[in-house]
Amino acid sequence: MSKDRLVLITQNKHKLQELTPLFRKYNVEFNTTSVEKHEIRSERVEEIARVAAKVAFDTLQKPVVVDDTGFFVDSLNGFPGSYAAIVLKSIGYEGILRLMTDKTERTSRFKTAVGFCDGERLKVFSGSMSGTVARTPAGESGFGYDPIFVPEGFTKTYAELTLEEKVRISHRTRAFEGFLRWYTSMLDNP
Amino acid sequence: MSKDRLVLITQNKHKLQELTPLFRKYNVEFNTTSVEKHEIRSERVEEIARVAAKVAFDTLQKPVVVDDTGFFVDSLNGFPGSYAAIVLKSIGYEGILRLMTDKTERTSRFKTAVGFCDGERLKVFSGSMSGTVARTPAGESGFGYDPIFVPEGFTKTYAELTLEEKVRISHRTRAFEGFLRWYTSMLDNP
Repeated sequence: MSKDRLVLITQNKHKLQELTPLFRKYNVEFNTTSVEKHEIRSERVEEIARVAAKVAFDTLQKPVVVDDTGFFVDSLNGFPGSYAAIVLKSIGYEGILRLMTDKTERTSRFKTAVGFCDGERLKVFSGSMSGTVARTPAGESGFGYDPIFVPEGFTKTYAELTLEEKVRISHRTRAFEGFLRWYTSMLDNP
Repeated sequence: MSKDRLVLITQNKHKLQELTPLFRKYNVEFNTTSVEKHEIRSERVEEIARVAAKVAFDTLQKPVVVDDTGFFVDSLNGFPGSYAAIVLKSIGYEGILRLMTDKTERTSRFKTAVGFCDGERLKVFSGSMSGTVARTPAGESGFGYDPIFVPEGFTKTYAELTLEEKVRISHRTRAFEGFLRWYTSMLDNP
């Protein structure tokens, strides 16, 4: 087990805001980096996170953790899926709403995969959250598709939740909790 | 210069239909293969074709040629771009039309990049065709976004043209003609 501090591969400030309290809860310290995530073309977020972790480790030679998130809308055959970030840049969540104008079936799912690599181990953890796509965007917090996603058991969008509320329940939290439980138990039992 | 026959990396029957007469025009024979194109995640078709050619050569150890095509809609900030094929599978060209319902600006562009690698040389050729996105789909021939793309100087969609007409003018033809001119002159002057 490397004694180097864990490096989190992200330049996304919103993600950092969500992850910082979570890592603190598990007493895991981390550094950030200017090295960008290497993203392969795949429809599977697990595969994207796995390869991104491997490549980041090869570059940095330190234990790394990196995540990839997809947004899957059932009535659009899973679109935008693992291409969520790229689609957001071009047509935005407004594009998703437009594609769904006449869709009564609104179910969708966020899924995050977390990849870890320290040279000895290459592991992937995933977490998801089901919900529905709102008819109109609502809320100011969060990022990405948050203003149009209403998680199961809620009547508000992710973007209407406080940071604390979102961190408590989100797909990203579920994936990172799986990682952090494994990681801390590995540190305790090397 | 390898004496092996050129291998065309595609499993797309429509592409083969379009390319066969073009290769015949230049007296270039080719084989096909069951090896699939390796597609990296990039917004640039040239980069996708370049890496795909390199990877295919590494696998087959024979001269290879492989293409990648993007479809760029101006009023959608370039969407679907190099993700054209994947987007087609989920939301179809119907999705593009729906995203453009209220757009009066209908300009768009097809762009093909052709990558060649024989171990010594790694070359990329590109060809594009500007046009507009039709209000409604028309035509039965071709594939992909052909039913909604009206090339410049025409009043019909790609899918309303005969195979011969499309092959005469298309973005794919332009890219492959560039390749074939270079390739045959290289064969003549090794």
